[in-house]
Amino acid sequence: MFKRIDHIGIVVNNLDESLKTYCDQLGFTLVERVAIPEQLVEAAFLDANNGTIELIAPTDATSGTARFLQNRGEGTHHICFEVDDIEVALAELRAQGLRLIDERPRQGVHGLVAFVHPKATHGTMIELLQKQAH
Amino acid sequence: MFKRIDHIGIVVNNLDESLKTYCDQLGFTLVERVAIPEQLVEAAFLDANNGTIELIAPTDATSGTARFLQNRGEGTHHICFEVDDIEVALAELRAQGLRLIDERPRQGVHGLVAFVHPKATHGTMIELLQKQAH
Repeated sequence: MFKRIDHIGIVVNNLDESLKTYCDQLGFTLVERVAIPEQLVEAAFLDANNGTIELIAPTDATSGTARFLQNRGEGTHHICFEVDDIEVALAELRAQGLRLIDERPRQGVHGLVAFVHPKATHGTMIELLQKQAH
Repeated sequence: MFKRIDHIGIVVNNLDESLKTYCDQLGFTLVERVAIPEQLVEAAFLDANNGTIELIAPTDATSGTARFLQNRGEGTHHICFEVDDIEVALAELRAQGLRLIDERPRQGVHGLVAFVHPKATHGTMIELLQKQAH
């Protein structure tokens, strides 16, 4: 079902500070920095050659990301796998009885996305991505 | 410095139960299941095409992994990046002032490994891996 690991999402308090760590200290290259106003976050994608690292910071204290930070602190938030057809993938997961956050795909930064509930996958939030051209 | 994402480590309570989820429900293929007695854990590596997912479960309540489960619950534990030369990579990270868990490489399942302290990297534990033939 899953083609490849597309990216790993990491929630951070401050995007500028974490970019100093990930780019200046760890040596990653910033590919894209984008505001996602409907999620009340800003995200930065870093090149890891066979995939990307997505740093995510809240732009508003009421966002889900801000609540994640309050509850868990900074750290890994989700693993995103690329799929060929997200409708087919969601139907398969539903048939397997897996609890979903998104019953229908929604528009993400790089294509159609949907999240599986972390309670269904032993604590790790899995995102599905069907890529679309920008 | 980092060549590629090698694997993502996920800590779980029970390896058999989580393999049912990840293989039977999510469709991953089990590549290798291995006991790591010096870490008091058992691990299973799942094929994700461009990298692997490592499920890790404690075999003893005194292991660091058991403490992680008590403190955080099941979920993502680390991201492992492959490097060409782990001594060179550690020297670069040290020169950048990043706090390390392992000052020297140690023997892992698939090669020489070392962990960076999650406090240095905004909550995400990073593992370095210099691969060696089995």
